Amino acid sequence: MALVFDLLGVFFFALSGSLLAARRGFDIVGSLLLGSLTGLGGGVVRDIVLGVTPTAFDDPVYLLPPLAAVVVVYFLHGPVRRFRRPILVFDAAGLGLFCTTGAVTALEHGMNPVAAALLGLTTGVGGGLLRDVVANRDPQLFDPGDLYALPAMLGAALITAFWAVGWRGVWLEAAVAALVFALRILSLRFHWHAPHAARTSHPARTEPAPPR
Amino acid sequence: MALVFDLLGVFFFALSGSLLAARRGFDIVGSLLLGSLTGLGGGVVRDIVLGVTPTAFDDPVYLLPPLAAVVVVYFLHGPVRRFRRPILVFDAAGLGLFCTTGAVTALEHGMNPVAAALLGLTTGVGGGLLRDVVANRDPQLFDPGDLYALPAMLGAALITAFWAVGWRGVWLEAAVAALVFALRILSLRFHWHAPHAARTSHPARTEPAPPR
Amino acid sequence: MALVFDLLGVFFFALSGSLLAARRGFDIVGSLLLGSLTGLGGGVVRDIVLGVTPTAFDDPVYLLPPLAAVVVVYFLHGPVRRFRRPILVFDAAGLGLFCTTGAVTALEHGMNPVAAALLGLTTGVGGGLLRDVVANRDPQLFDPGDLYALPAMLGAALITAFWAVGWRGVWLEAAVAALVFALRILSLRFHWHAPHAARTSHPARTEPAPPR
Repeated sequence: MALVFDLLGVFFFALSGSLLAARRGFDIVGSLLLGSLTGLGGGVVRDIVLGVTPTAFDDPVYLLPPLAAVVVVYFLHGPVRRFRRPILVFDAAGLGLFCTTGAVTALEHGMNPVAAALLGLTTGVGGGLLRDVVANRDPQLFDPGDLYALPAMLGAALITAFWAVGWRGVWLEAAVAALVFALRILSLRFHWHAPHAARTSHPARTEPAPPR
Repeated sequence: MALVFDLLGVFFFALSGSLLAARRGFDIVGSLLLGSLTGLGGGVVRDIVLGVTPTAFDDPVYLLPPLAAVVVVYFLHGPVRRFRRPILVFDAAGLGLFCTTGAVTALEHGMNPVAAALLGLTTGVGGGLLRDVVANRDPQLFDPGDLYALPAMLGAALITAFWAVGWRGVWLEAAVAALVFALRILSLRFHWHAPHAARTSHPARTEPAPPR
Repeated sequence: MALVFDLLGVFFFALSGSLLAARRGFDIVGSLLLGSLTGLGGGVVRDIVLGVTPTAFDDPVYLLPPLAAVVVVYFLHGPVRRFRRPILVFDAAGLGLFCTTGAVTALEHGMNPVAAALLGLTTGVGGGLLRDVVANRDPQLFDPGDLYALPAMLGAALITAFWAVGWRGVWLEAAVAALVFALRILSLRFHWHAPHAARTSHPARTEPAPPR
């Protein structure tokens, strides 16, 4: 059951990578590589920090969701493109699932609470960050228009805190994932956003990327 | 003998990194760093996933090819620039060598066949991907105009399949590397290419990188 | 005492990451993530290559400097922006500290001298490189207008050479860090720079980034 949720999370993230590949005019191989990186990258980084063989390399079943995402984007790009909202909803679901499972995995490997929360965050946002870095664009993660990392941070911190007082189990994880999901969706709906990096900064003074 | 081939592969890849540094106006230190990353990056990522000390750090002889590439590009940039075709040929040779040696290394470390094929691909295309990511440009790997990852995938998969039925050895590896090399060269010559990420996508509808 | 210096280095580097986040209009979460990546990324990569749990994940105190940098940039962005020179001085201090502590850490883990020097360089320049890669801009490291990697290379090589002849200790490290710092500052002051990647290259012939 946990595996099914995990694979669904990989699929939703991979979908966002394959869609980006389609928008940028990459070929189907780029779609597969970018989708895999988005869906599996966060967990691979977490496992490398933990010093264990990355799950994505250990168990081939994790490669099926990116393959499915490639097929869906190839045949249904038009319809999928129009459904921007469902994609954001799926991505929010992946975020909620990954930040909780990532924190739990880290705790199970004996990491301290702060590191476990960090690795939960890494698992949740790492894939999307790698997607944007490889696709050569500004990370969506840093977009000041809504909340993305903050719900994931909160979720990973909650999991860690509950673990410290002995509350564990799949239902608790599901509840925290649902909370992260809800906060992400609400931030999109109501344009919640975090303060800018600098209090005094305003658009006219921010500096564009240097001319290239 | 295997080491000589390996070092040649590193040299060809490093050459492409140092040439890019020259084209972008970086200094000789950038040439060394970008060349090293291109020549050694794929193998380092593979070894980190395998959980072993990266070969490039374990054996200093691996730093000689990037140094040689820096010297060649510094003194012969003009001539080298004009020989775009030889560079592509050398790069194809590196691709063929690395995807096979990468898969074999993974199999020798007891990875499952799918993971071994994946790590062969990673070894083959990882360095070039890191080069483009660090040099801040769209990955050549995703260029829909020819085949790059696909021959490497095929080569790594063949090595893994042959290994499963007990066929191993340096001649087999050389044959697979030659096949990957040939497919890459033929794809350049005849403009073979993979389908786009989306069936319905056509140039006018692909989205450029957002203004920055 | 070594820890205090280390944390100061993290703080100076994190400051440059958070300032970049402010200039690019990212939010306060982006400021924290980019600052952490800059301050801690080089050491994390070094520890992953060494095969040990990254210090930044092992000891939560390493997260305080990035937090402090976020606060400083949030409240004092205007003044901080005007003090471009102090920032460069702080960054040079971080560079000197990190390339020496990085090389020492690698030697203590039994790496060969060449690998230790490489890992010292990685620790010194890795965080800034990750900052620029994630923020989607050309790496400052490759800027041909001054010296950045070269002093760090020299410092890491000196540490390794001294270690080989049995000279160790915090005062020696401090002296080497001071030398790296001085060379970096002098290169800024007198516009020292390394040769271009290609001898025959001149500005009119360098190729801009491709249009996107």
